[in-house]
Amino acid sequence: MPQTPTHKTAILLLNCPDRKGIVAAIANFLLQLDANILHADQHQDRDLSLFFTRIEFTLDPTRCSEDHFRATFAPLALQFHMNWHLHYTDTRPNVAIFVSSYLHCLADLLHRHQSGELPCNLALIVANHPDAQPLADFYRIPFHLLPVTADTKPQIEARQLDLLQHHAIDLVILARYMQVLSPDFVRAYPQRIINVHHSFLPAFTGARPYHAAFARGVKLIGATSHYVTADLDEGPIIEQDVTRVSQNDQLAGLIQKGRDLERLVLSRAVRWHLNQRILSYANKTVVFT
Amino acid sequence: MPQTPTHKTAILLLNCPDRKGIVAAIANFLLQLDANILHADQHQDRDLSLFFTRIEFTLDPTRCSEDHFRATFAPLALQFHMNWHLHYTDTRPNVAIFVSSYLHCLADLLHRHQSGELPCNLALIVANHPDAQPLADFYRIPFHLLPVTADTKPQIEARQLDLLQHHAIDLVILARYMQVLSPDFVRAYPQRIINVHHSFLPAFTGARPYHAAFARGVKLIGATSHYVTADLDEGPIIEQDVTRVSQNDQLAGLIQKGRDLERLVLSRAVRWHLNQRILSYANKTVVFT
Amino acid sequence: MPQTPTHKTAILLLNCPDRKGIVAAIANFLLQLDANILHADQHQDRDLSLFFTRIEFTLDPTRCSEDHFRATFAPLALQFHMNWHLHYTDTRPNVAIFVSSYLHCLADLLHRHQSGELPCNLALIVANHPDAQPLADFYRIPFHLLPVTADTKPQIEARQLDLLQHHAIDLVILARYMQVLSPDFVRAYPQRIINVHHSFLPAFTGARPYHAAFARGVKLIGATSHYVTADLDEGPIIEQDVTRVSQNDQLAGLIQKGRDLERLVLSRAVRWHLNQRILSYANKTVVFT
Amino acid sequence: MPQTPTHKTAILLLNCPDRKGIVAAIANFLLQLDANILHADQHQDRDLSLFFTRIEFTLDPTRCSEDHFRATFAPLALQFHMNWHLHYTDTRPNVAIFVSSYLHCLADLLHRHQSGELPCNLALIVANHPDAQPLADFYRIPFHLLPVTADTKPQIEARQLDLLQHHAIDLVILARYMQVLSPDFVRAYPQRIINVHHSFLPAFTGARPYHAAFARGVKLIGATSHYVTADLDEGPIIEQDVTRVSQNDQLAGLIQKGRDLERLVLSRAVRWHLNQRILSYANKTVVFT
Repeated sequence: MPQTPTHKTAILLLNCPDRKGIVAAIANFLLQLDANILHADQHQDRDLSLFFTRIEFTLDPTRCSEDHFRATFAPLALQFHMNWHLHYTDTRPNVAIFVSSYLHCLADLLHRHQSGELPCNLALIVANHPDAQPLADFYRIPFHLLPVTADTKPQIEARQLDLLQHHAIDLVILARYMQVLSPDFVRAYPQRIINVHHSFLPAFTGARPYHAAFARGVKLIGATSHYVTADLDEGPIIEQDVTRVSQNDQLAGLIQKGRDLERLVLSRAVRWHLNQRILSYANKTVVFT
Repeated sequence: MPQTPTHKTAILLLNCPDRKGIVAAIANFLLQLDANILHADQHQDRDLSLFFTRIEFTLDPTRCSEDHFRATFAPLALQFHMNWHLHYTDTRPNVAIFVSSYLHCLADLLHRHQSGELPCNLALIVANHPDAQPLADFYRIPFHLLPVTADTKPQIEARQLDLLQHHAIDLVILARYMQVLSPDFVRAYPQRIINVHHSFLPAFTGARPYHAAFARGVKLIGATSHYVTADLDEGPIIEQDVTRVSQNDQLAGLIQKGRDLERLVLSRAVRWHLNQRILSYANKTVVFT
Repeated sequence: MPQTPTHKTAILLLNCPDRKGIVAAIANFLLQLDANILHADQHQDRDLSLFFTRIEFTLDPTRCSEDHFRATFAPLALQFHMNWHLHYTDTRPNVAIFVSSYLHCLADLLHRHQSGELPCNLALIVANHPDAQPLADFYRIPFHLLPVTADTKPQIEARQLDLLQHHAIDLVILARYMQVLSPDFVRAYPQRIINVHHSFLPAFTGARPYHAAFARGVKLIGATSHYVTADLDEGPIIEQDVTRVSQNDQLAGLIQKGRDLERLVLSRAVRWHLNQRILSYANKTVVFT
Repeated sequence: MPQTPTHKTAILLLNCPDRKGIVAAIANFLLQLDANILHADQHQDRDLSLFFTRIEFTLDPTRCSEDHFRATFAPLALQFHMNWHLHYTDTRPNVAIFVSSYLHCLADLLHRHQSGELPCNLALIVANHPDAQPLADFYRIPFHLLPVTADTKPQIEARQLDLLQHHAIDLVILARYMQVLSPDFVRAYPQRIINVHHSFLPAFTGARPYHAAFARGVKLIGATSHYVTADLDEGPIIEQDVTRVSQNDQLAGLIQKGRDLERLVLSRAVRWHLNQRILSYANKTVVFT
């Protein structure tokens, strides 16, 4: 069904207790607004009796404004006890990238953003090392160097939070940022901080996972992107991937192969988040790909 | 939502031209029958403006019989020009396996069937070589030895078709059956014959694909399961998988690694077909996994 | 280089401290025996300064008997402090399979053995449940039912060890055998017991790994084959593989997908072991594939 | 075996007719020069009776210069009819990258080069579109814009060849360069031009492979890196990889997923070539990874 150029595209992402009639209620609601469904995905967790859905649709803003949609959908959401999130795709989320001195994930994200793969406004890069400055300059992203020591960490986090608030940041990406964020920082951005851990979690949590994988003699190494929670390396997993290693791969080989995995799993997680494809519950994620 | 033991589970699989109101119409129909949706998947082909859905649900047979469902759904299906297929999971499809002298796919399917992984009635095995007889006997599946020569092919196919009709066969699995079926045979079972081809189609169509892959020096070999059409190796692809090879794999190594792929892609295709997860159109498949 | 039919094929597998002259010494030794090298692989662990090699060759038994080879190679081995293992491929190792009530790995191994993929003498199946008996009978492998309770475990292990010794067993395969072997049992067969663990080790050690993986919300599940040591799930890893899962895979789906992985990683480990492709050291394996 | 800092590392890559005594001859040669073998790989093609090896070693340049090595190895090479290539790792090959307007492979190669992953001198970038200029400038690689039309192609190729000769280029990388090179150009750089084709060759040769893959309904898409020969898309395959697609991936999704594959298979091929890991024969490659 072709859509007229004046139509807007929106994504409705929600979960609620599962019961009869949800699909019909939502479908009837959208039909009555004359919305055009482009994609619809749903999932049911039978153990927890939960219902999840993501619906992408277009509608005529002259017939139904975003405010009107929200106002008329709210009673229905209340009736079904929905957690819901509505996103119009002409609004680009504001994103901050945190980085240290490993630059492969940053360079990858910057190139993907420039190529149009990541629909967001890259508002700033925060680094505790100066190495990323030239890349930030090349891609014209404001760069903030905020070195962290054990003593200054509270003050630096306060400045980081100021920056995030000032730029109305919706998503923070930890692109191999080698500092552990405090629980207070994490709580300020629930389900809105994405980290990449360089192992196939839950194997090899903590520091130096490639060293640990090499010592254990695994035959595949992995990387994991996840939402950050107060429990280090324990947040909801978004994406994982692995690659084969052998005795021919010494530690340096693992690290090199791992970089490619880190780039892939982090960029997928970011793209899915920006495309409103992820719902998180019970420390897991539902990803509508 | 727990379901009472007397409820029946059914799967509705359909496609139709895409237009507004389809989801609402189906959802309202199921709600009015007091059906419980267990899973729902949908897909839209925007280029061709087609809508596809698979809905798994339970309902109370004392309130709505299968006949009643069919009778009341038919007008709605007509209105939306649906191709639709309704399957109650307490009805087990009748399946025939055709095999020659390579037995790995047959042995795999028989073990999976016995383990409960393939919800069907394995009604018969048809072979043009006697090698499969002991396996058939062990798993107690009726075995029919029908050797084929160029001269006898038409008569043998006639006898095969008789057997299929006599056993009311719903699905034919070609488990490395080394005879090409005639167009007439194929036309008698549209989208109901699944073959495994031992290459990553469309690479290496035709005979001896491992030899061709070895000669070309590929770095991955593959296998493909597909519905059989009158055009050899050109039917809709259901599943593909690959595995890595290197100079260390001589031709025999490719063949051995390939056997594992063949088992996997064929058994997945069969399970998905039996679970009503596949819709075929425009020589492609939509697979709701 | 074609080999005459009277030639025998042998495999020399060894490791030793790395130093100059090893390769030359072995190559000169084989050349002087007029041996034909078919394959040669080597590996060096630079951190530990260790040298590993696997050489497959043919030689004329009328010019050099196995005894003669061993007698003349011994001084060279002593000089380089080699751990070495010589295997003539016309000698088939004796293998025992231990199994409980999950039969998918057993069925797979039996079919592969019958197909000629596993060069060994399958001497016996030991089970603590009767379910495997029909498969054992079909493939004509002697079957020993030895149920184990906490009380009887020492006596049963003694009987198992008697059976292994009586049949001169070279390799024990734990094909989803659900009993933990005692350290004494394990020590009797160092690097000669292969187990399959149904997770991507070291993630999810211990019991019910699929349940743990499901609870953690991983996006890939794995399986691991490894040599058994006295530390449960901590032995040298031989092979691992993974497959993708999503929210559509409930626990039962993980278990079903996992069965395919278990079959693959266990059968590969067994085949590599029988083909003398594995050297184990420092709780790791070197696998010459 | 630790090596003193004054030692040089070299790689010997060769193939020759297989016969007894090759390994011993090479090992004795290196031993007599007091060389330290770091890695050694070998391969035998039994069908063609060919022997391949790659040996990485260190040696003391004050005891054996490169000239001395070449002079003393030459008679041995002659005796065994070897094609051989000796490379000292302190010599960095000169590399040219050709690119059009798709920049993902170029950006990836430039970042990898800067990170130290690609041991070469990136001497120049040749483009037929201006889009790559900013990236070239950022990484400070000389950039040559040479637009090509049907009429000017011969002159432009002449200028390109001049540039390659002027910079003593050892390897040309076609990083999604959308022009077909003439047979004369290709013949000037045998086994020294690496291309990435955006399909799993030999499936979907020619133009617009993602469109063809989408039309055929494949379940995996791939990418292939290969040496360029006069037969388009028919040169020796170096590396291939694939990723899964489904009905959810429209054409744009295939192209986006494919970009990640292209980066991976091209960068692996380049790294292996620069590390002297590839031998090519009979339109195949032997890759010692």
